[in-house]
Amino acid sequence: MTSSDAELLADRTPLPSDLDSRLREHLTFLIEVDQLKTILRASPLAAADRRENDAEHSWHLALMVMVLAEYADEPIDVGHTIKLVVVHDLVEIYAGDTPIYDTKLGESQQEREEAAADRLFGILPDDSGRQLRALWDEFEARQTPEARFAKAIDRFQPLLLNWMAKGGTWRTPGVTANDVRSRKAAIGEGSAALYDAAMQLIDEGERRGWARTS
Amino acid sequence: MTSSDAELLADRTPLPSDLDSRLREHLTFLIEVDQLKTILRASPLAAADRRENDAEHSWHLALMVMVLAEYADEPIDVGHTIKLVVVHDLVEIYAGDTPIYDTKLGESQQEREEAAADRLFGILPDDSGRQLRALWDEFEARQTPEARFAKAIDRFQPLLLNWMAKGGTWRTPGVTANDVRSRKAAIGEGSAALYDAAMQLIDEGERRGWARTS
Ligand SMILES: [Ca+2]
Repeated sequence: MTSSDAELLADRTPLPSDLDSRLREHLTFLIEVDQLKTILRASPLAAADRRENDAEHSWHLALMVMVLAEYADEPIDVGHTIKLVVVHDLVEIYAGDTPIYDTKLGESQQEREEAAADRLFGILPDDSGRQLRALWDEFEARQTPEARFAKAIDRFQPLLLNWMAKGGTWRTPGVTANDVRSRKAAIGEGSAALYDAAMQLIDEGERRGWARTS
Repeated sequence: MTSSDAELLADRTPLPSDLDSRLREHLTFLIEVDQLKTILRASPLAAADRRENDAEHSWHLALMVMVLAEYADEPIDVGHTIKLVVVHDLVEIYAGDTPIYDTKLGESQQEREEAAADRLFGILPDDSGRQLRALWDEFEARQTPEARFAKAIDRFQPLLLNWMAKGGTWRTPGVTANDVRSRKAAIGEGSAALYDAAMQLIDEGERRGWARTS
């Protein structure tokens, strides 16, 4: 892989020139990904009056995978599943967050994210870049039990934040409770128990007027 | 374990009463930990003009463990090491962050963090709470290769942020370059290569006047 000519965050304060060149590429990447902490999602935090960023979200998913692994429908390697959620949003550093109810942005999402993956993972030494890219591809393809459970958790987590906000993004103009339900189908591909819980949260939210009955 | 009588974040918007009671305890915990996103560390971000929070820091460590695993001096289970860093700062939700150069706060740190662990992991069903507590205890004790590498990465990560900030917390009043060096000894217990790189960063920082020569 080749890195792009675009400026990297590390170029602002170049690393010492006597660092081992392979380690230097690893550290350049690890500085570049600091930007994930600045990519805002639509979801409001439960603990503070601001939106969540992608780094916080990814950490929350990692802990949720550990705590909720017992609800996975298929046996999963928990450590591997955590790796998937840790890398799953990295491409948004260059591609930005695509809110789940933004169908227009959704159309170009795959193309934008593939280009972002080429550029971002290209910063790393080839073998390291291929390893992370394989994890991101696995998450996106949802063909392994780990990827299905990781995706289920990715779809479940915002439900907790929206519940705590008495609606949150469920109140997006034009979005109905049934739209919310249909966006949560992926939870059922990883965990029947979490899918049932998701429906209980949405049903109760709709009853309370936090999500619109169409 | 028994949960404390103190108010929980989830009490502000109680979960539906018809949720399975075990899952309800898991979700109550997963809402409570949203607070990690509000615990500020001393380190400045590289990508934005604000301090880093514990959730972002924990995510960054998880990715660093994956990318830098090849520099570990002993064979490590990468998935298990990531679990350690994902939980390592959770107790700060109740105990707060203890900046590494604050020796006064440091004296009471262990006691405050043990009490916080009892309270936080006590929210979970007993078996789940014991699992997470065991990971936190393992990280703290540094008796396994995974815990030593996790601690090394925890000490290495702020170096990258301080480097990008041309000093950052190295400029804390009263702190010298040698103080910074001595706080980084734990890196050498997990990775000789990363310890050498840490010293190269600090040496060059001192030469540029970003850390004070005593
Ligand atoms: Ca800490």
